[in-house]
Amino acid sequence: MMNSPRISVNARAAALIERLRADPAEFRVAIDKGELGETRIDAGSRCQGSIAAGLSLAQICMGGLGTVEITASAATPNWPWTLVVRSSHPVTACLASQYAGWKLSHGAGKDAFFALGSGPARALARKEPLFSELDYRDEAETAALVLESARPPPPAIVSKVAQDCGLAPDRLTFLYAPTQSLAGNVQVVARVLEVALHKAHELKFPLDRIIEGMGAAPLSPPHPDFVVAMGRTNDAIIYGGRVHLFVNGPASDARALAEQLPSRRSRDYGRPFAEIFASFNRDFYAIDPMLFAPAAVIATALETGESFHAGGLDPKLLDAAFR
Amino acid sequence: MMNSPRISVNARAAALIERLRADPAEFRVAIDKGELGETRIDAGSRCQGSIAAGLSLAQICMGGLGTVEITASAATPNWPWTLVVRSSHPVTACLASQYAGWKLSHGAGKDAFFALGSGPARALARKEPLFSELDYRDEAETAALVLESARPPPPAIVSKVAQDCGLAPDRLTFLYAPTQSLAGNVQVVARVLEVALHKAHELKFPLDRIIEGMGAAPLSPPHPDFVVAMGRTNDAIIYGGRVHLFVNGPASDARALAEQLPSRRSRDYGRPFAEIFASFNRDFYAIDPMLFAPAAVIATALETGESFHAGGLDPKLLDAAFR
Amino acid sequence: MMNSPRISVNARAAALIERLRADPAEFRVAIDKGELGETRIDAGSRCQGSIAAGLSLAQICMGGLGTVEITASAATPNWPWTLVVRSSHPVTACLASQYAGWKLSHGAGKDAFFALGSGPARALARKEPLFSELDYRDEAETAALVLESARPPPPAIVSKVAQDCGLAPDRLTFLYAPTQSLAGNVQVVARVLEVALHKAHELKFPLDRIIEGMGAAPLSPPHPDFVVAMGRTNDAIIYGGRVHLFVNGPASDARALAEQLPSRRSRDYGRPFAEIFASFNRDFYAIDPMLFAPAAVIATALETGESFHAGGLDPKLLDAAFR
Repeated sequence: MMNSPRISVNARAAALIERLRADPAEFRVAIDKGELGETRIDAGSRCQGSIAAGLSLAQICMGGLGTVEITASAATPNWPWTLVVRSSHPVTACLASQYAGWKLSHGAGKDAFFALGSGPARALARKEPLFSELDYRDEAETAALVLESARPPPPAIVSKVAQDCGLAPDRLTFLYAPTQSLAGNVQVVARVLEVALHKAHELKFPLDRIIEGMGAAPLSPPHPDFVVAMGRTNDAIIYGGRVHLFVNGPASDARALAEQLPSRRSRDYGRPFAEIFASFNRDFYAIDPMLFAPAAVIATALETGESFHAGGLDPKLLDAAFR
Repeated sequence: MMNSPRISVNARAAALIERLRADPAEFRVAIDKGELGETRIDAGSRCQGSIAAGLSLAQICMGGLGTVEITASAATPNWPWTLVVRSSHPVTACLASQYAGWKLSHGAGKDAFFALGSGPARALARKEPLFSELDYRDEAETAALVLESARPPPPAIVSKVAQDCGLAPDRLTFLYAPTQSLAGNVQVVARVLEVALHKAHELKFPLDRIIEGMGAAPLSPPHPDFVVAMGRTNDAIIYGGRVHLFVNGPASDARALAEQLPSRRSRDYGRPFAEIFASFNRDFYAIDPMLFAPAAVIATALETGESFHAGGLDPKLLDAAFR
Repeated sequence: MMNSPRISVNARAAALIERLRADPAEFRVAIDKGELGETRIDAGSRCQGSIAAGLSLAQICMGGLGTVEITASAATPNWPWTLVVRSSHPVTACLASQYAGWKLSHGAGKDAFFALGSGPARALARKEPLFSELDYRDEAETAALVLESARPPPPAIVSKVAQDCGLAPDRLTFLYAPTQSLAGNVQVVARVLEVALHKAHELKFPLDRIIEGMGAAPLSPPHPDFVVAMGRTNDAIIYGGRVHLFVNGPASDARALAEQLPSRRSRDYGRPFAEIFASFNRDFYAIDPMLFAPAAVIATALETGESFHAGGLDPKLLDAAFR
């Protein structure tokens, strides 16, 4: 067999970024250079951004290793516009790249910068404990990092990311958009598959057994308030998301995964996320982590051909959350 | 910020036309040159055309500023094949380009030519009063005009379009297909979003507040009779179309827009369009203009995050109209 | 009119194969050269392959003359992931190319090789009686053949295919994947439109009258046992497939086609395919050929604009077959 060149999520993201660079007006993004020569793409902070930019951001987050599309679906009839996400490399696309797991903070007080970095640069830097369980490591000459933020990263963060990636700052592209923006909103709902992967990991399902993944979730309407906006993107997944995983290993494990994966298995299931968040005095870490999951799950055990269904959509809760 | 080059709907359309030119057999279109050197693409008159050509025509109409796709949807179960249209620049794509607003007529009697021009050439010529309310103006070295017609334009029309666009005739491409044809049929149903934009304009909703738009409508079966064919394409939108607009400005305006936008707010709602047309003795202008609208509407007010739903699909009427 | 260059299904397939060759790791395929210099792409035998590879295989089977996409549909709610297939050249794409009609066998006993070849090479070789009724003949400098098989073809088969195609063996690409594999499974379900075309031919509907075709079917979960895997792919089409054909000729013929086309018109309809197969002692040719058909059909008569519906989905049977 010929030697299969490795997949580079950063190289694939670079090709998607080229499309944004070629037509910023189409995507309503603004592109400039930061102090250290890094490229910065504002997709929803000082410029309005767009749903098109959100789709692009989502695919950049996945390192170009998946598709994110909008379709019209009757599964959630009041909210027909639905993101459909697919990857034949779900662990690499979603956990090594898309997961917002890189905590980046600098300074203190009013000017403090804090953001969770997601996207392919994570797979170059590999600073998070999660990477000890992922056998994927990127090698690339450029890196892209997506920030759910209204601000570009300050030079200290740029410098840290550059160092951790082993690249000069001018090889980096930072894309940022707040959750409230059109693009930020799309980008977060497009995490429906990633959320399932992350919970599977929390449930200690062996990641190397997850071979294929597909997900869908209704596009929540964006909201100008951060907490409500964040709440809705979570609700889109928790009450409207569905995911299908194809896994290796014993069927009993696939069955257990399906049964435990849906959001309704969580103690905190049953109210709009913003309400839950308020009830815990906005302490994110007090919320049951098992809540972060799609509503409906199918797990197919490739070894036996059995499929296990669990959970289900909750259209009423979507209505309560989205209106 | 870097200077964002302007969007050119004609340049974008030219790239789409290149694909038709590269493979006319695939699209079943016929391409030739007219007397004045203009390119003419017959997508359904003397050649059969195709649904693929219709999708291309629809995207050319939108100046390449949107996507038009076919999917299978359970929202209209007897007519599952559904066009999904999306644009992050709905006003430019739909009103400055796609709207069939340029009246082109020449001659009299049997040989008289009359067609409504749509597509990006309109945004170069800007001859219609509508353009006084659109701040978009294209600059381009080529222009494309789509005609819902069985005939290519006569030289007098070509010459007029060239002059109004400020281009030599050999820089123009005319694409034409009658409503009865496969491509013409697709191309008209793909106006589901444009129809909503146009009615929003009729309702005096400020166009610069419309930021994003998505629409879907079942693909009506084409019919060999012009009136029935035209009726069905209208019915697909009036009784089967759904549109979601994301708008700036006060939520009360978004609510009023949603409430007034659906077709059922019209006096003439409730019968297949061909029947309505006949009842007015085929006087198009006697029909209530408020009828030309999608069946179901969501308007999201970006300022408050509220979404307003109004209208609804009418599958029985679709059955009556399409069978 | 300019001379329209002919469509070459092999040239179009070659462009799709280039994408597999450019990124075998993405598609999880393995590419090597066989003894006679032929290219061999293993999409699911010794390597795992992927759903992405299956989509590519399906489009290669159709000679690049159609689209095959995955969406989420509420039509089969327990099995939402749905393949949507469309072609504006359904007879060429499905019958001259995609149909698995080329019987290739070599040797005897344990090492005997037998596979049904599908894909564009068939339209170069034209060895099957079916081609006497198809006016399509490809001319191309390369050829691609898809085999529903766990093994690459032995040299004797490669040599025979090369000879029949009039090409040197090193101009051939063989793509293979067993039905049980992720890619093989996708590739077979994507035959939903082809199955309708083939039955239309069995019903003696004149093929040159079929102008457009669209189909959809739920993606069956793959199964490690060949008979169950094959059964499920058939069930996806027989109990979950829907097809819309646009045809020329009298409406009465379109009506008859719609009425006879659905699978439920078959004597053997009503049980999972694997069960039917077992009940005939695994004698494939004892099964009523009329069973191989989509569940629900719409035929639109382009001459009169009438559409005829027949058949319907059977979600319970899908559940029985897929779980």
